[in-house]
Amino acid sequence: MNETRQQAERARKAFLKLSTSVDRTAVLNDVAAAIRESAKSIFAANEADLAEAKGSLAETLYKRLALNEPKLRDVLDGITQIARMEDPVGRVLEETELDEGLLLRKVRTPIGVIAAIFESRPDVVPQIAALAIRTGNAVLLKGGREAANTNAILGDVIRGALQKHGVTDAVQLVSTREQIAEFLKMDDLISLVIPRGSNEMVRTIQQSTKIPVLGHADGICHVNIDEFADIEKAIRIAVDSKAQYPAVCNAAETLLVHSNFAGREKVMKALADAGVELHDTGFGSEYLDYIMNVKIVNGLDEAIDHIHRFGSAHTESIVTENEDNARRFLNEVDSAGVFWNASTRFADGYRYGFGAEVGISTNKTHARGPVGVDGLLIYKYQLIGNGHIVATYTGENAKPFRHRKLL
Amino acid sequence: MNETRQQAERARKAFLKLSTSVDRTAVLNDVAAAIRESAKSIFAANEADLAEAKGSLAETLYKRLALNEPKLRDVLDGITQIARMEDPVGRVLEETELDEGLLLRKVRTPIGVIAAIFESRPDVVPQIAALAIRTGNAVLLKGGREAANTNAILGDVIRGALQKHGVTDAVQLVSTREQIAEFLKMDDLISLVIPRGSNEMVRTIQQSTKIPVLGHADGICHVNIDEFADIEKAIRIAVDSKAQYPAVCNAAETLLVHSNFAGREKVMKALADAGVELHDTGFGSEYLDYIMNVKIVNGLDEAIDHIHRFGSAHTESIVTENEDNARRFLNEVDSAGVFWNASTRFADGYRYGFGAEVGISTNKTHARGPVGVDGLLIYKYQLIGNGHIVATYTGENAKPFRHRKLL
Repeated sequence: MNETRQQAERARKAFLKLSTSVDRTAVLNDVAAAIRESAKSIFAANEADLAEAKGSLAETLYKRLALNEPKLRDVLDGITQIARMEDPVGRVLEETELDEGLLLRKVRTPIGVIAAIFESRPDVVPQIAALAIRTGNAVLLKGGREAANTNAILGDVIRGALQKHGVTDAVQLVSTREQIAEFLKMDDLISLVIPRGSNEMVRTIQQSTKIPVLGHADGICHVNIDEFADIEKAIRIAVDSKAQYPAVCNAAETLLVHSNFAGREKVMKALADAGVELHDTGFGSEYLDYIMNVKIVNGLDEAIDHIHRFGSAHTESIVTENEDNARRFLNEVDSAGVFWNASTRFADGYRYGFGAEVGISTNKTHARGPVGVDGLLIYKYQLIGNGHIVATYTGENAKPFRHRKLL
Repeated sequence: MNETRQQAERARKAFLKLSTSVDRTAVLNDVAAAIRESAKSIFAANEADLAEAKGSLAETLYKRLALNEPKLRDVLDGITQIARMEDPVGRVLEETELDEGLLLRKVRTPIGVIAAIFESRPDVVPQIAALAIRTGNAVLLKGGREAANTNAILGDVIRGALQKHGVTDAVQLVSTREQIAEFLKMDDLISLVIPRGSNEMVRTIQQSTKIPVLGHADGICHVNIDEFADIEKAIRIAVDSKAQYPAVCNAAETLLVHSNFAGREKVMKALADAGVELHDTGFGSEYLDYIMNVKIVNGLDEAIDHIHRFGSAHTESIVTENEDNARRFLNEVDSAGVFWNASTRFADGYRYGFGAEVGISTNKTHARGPVGVDGLLIYKYQLIGNGHIVATYTGENAKPFRHRKLL
């Protein structure tokens, strides 16, 4: 067995222990304390990364790479919040009395070993580690090369805290792409892959594994200005959806405008004033920039067809005062988020009130839209009997089940 | 675009209509009525299949292939029950007031287009079709070649009923393996694959698609007789788990017996009396027959390790009067079903009270264990505002969110 496989085996073993016989809240508090105590070394490591990246990295990526005092405070606040969350593992979701003395319970459990792959942003290491610990999962973490020093020390510090509880290998750092390629083949040991980064990175991962991938490649979101839109709301929502922060997946890439909408010129002008370049080709491109496609449509059907054809099923918003059209849009558009008179930028785990965000999923199974800790959980069935056998409930004199819902 | 792709496109279109603007209960009642009216032609088609299969098919498969009056009555009862279920589509699962006038709703939705592949048993066609219609999904159905005539007429009858509602292509029969191979590549159009059949068939499908596959290949279930097991319960549960019906996935393949358990010989004799051949090698084989592996273990840790090493994470049962050992087993064994003093044969959607069963899943995401209609559903988020934008909630004078849970 090669070393990468052994690493996954150790993660699986740590998951089995972390999920059953460890005080996960105590672990999280120890992780936060250890990071706090190692702040100086963490900053020093981050400065080494920043020095190496200087000049070679674009300004926005460089900023993301920095882990300074305010950012570390946010990281620690995040872990503390996650530590305060009710432990989800073992929660009874449903309870049914199948028959006298035969009790079925559906119980929340972790998923197992998760592989998380992301770019730059070293604050993702403690954030994902904390979410994994809270939910009883083990995690294999691969960060960006630019953050190698910062990630390494964060990994060491977190593992130091885990060691006290005998679950060091519940969080492991992965350093090479080759190792990730090997992990992506281990569908017997790894149960979920979470990539966070460029469309290209996510797509490459989706194409190279049979393990379920939680996330999204493209975020091609639409704002659909209906015939019956309020002009002021149309302006606010179009501008916010595109220009409030264009570099993110929930920013809108396309504006659909009904041909009868009277405020078209005003909306276009407001977008231009906000620095947005308007195109009428390239539908299906994710610009992540101050560029937006505009299309004139002749009705709701055409708008919905366009969204289904060119969209990525992430988030779409209709601006209208007509309730029937709004209802149709909310029901008929097959996207993770369907909004009425609200900016597409609201599609976010924190804004939705989830407390923590694992990512945003455009999948049609397991988890869809912004994903909180629920996306890192599944369930199992516990059945408690007293010598019950199926023969009692089959054949000519079959006893009927009771199936009494208790919860 | 080739014909197979067009078929999937038509299914997607039918899904969009079926899920939003069709009375699904009326469709189900029409499907049941159409099948009832065509009973004679269905029996005739089935007789043609049976005549062709005579001699070339094993007795059990031949029995499964038959669709006679009592079986058709069961099929119709099943559809009627599904028609009576509350329509799950559109159900509000959660509701949160993010801020004044900004309402977030998590709403149940179908998944989309599902490909279902199964062997023999023509009664699966109306059963899966009914479940798909109830949940607003479209389904591409591939049945076994042996049932070709029966499946074809059932497909025609069901599509006739769908046609009245303008959603003919929500149920489509697929006739060749080559078409299925093409569908398994269309991860942009098909969102879930449900294979039901031999381990080999399921494994082949799992290995040849990136679309999520709901189901299980192996069912290697364990009965673990603890040191503190009651002898009578141990006998009942071991015999029922293996011999009540050995050809199914939830029948036990391995008996783990604690070395200190006093009733070992009695359990072995009872199994032998039930016709079970006992082996002490071949752990990890799914016999689906009157054959069982027996292993003597020296404690709970060894038993759990064995289950994790050789099992398929389907269903395992501990027989014990010791509550601590039972609790440990229920918590620590990472399988879809973990039972205490109950036969593994209870792992079944009908016995669990789900009313309908889609299959049994050993996946760690989306759905685990016996899967009812819930496995055919996901959700989307609807956000209803009144011109709300994210800029209000960011920056220096950011307004805080309210995040008030309403449901």
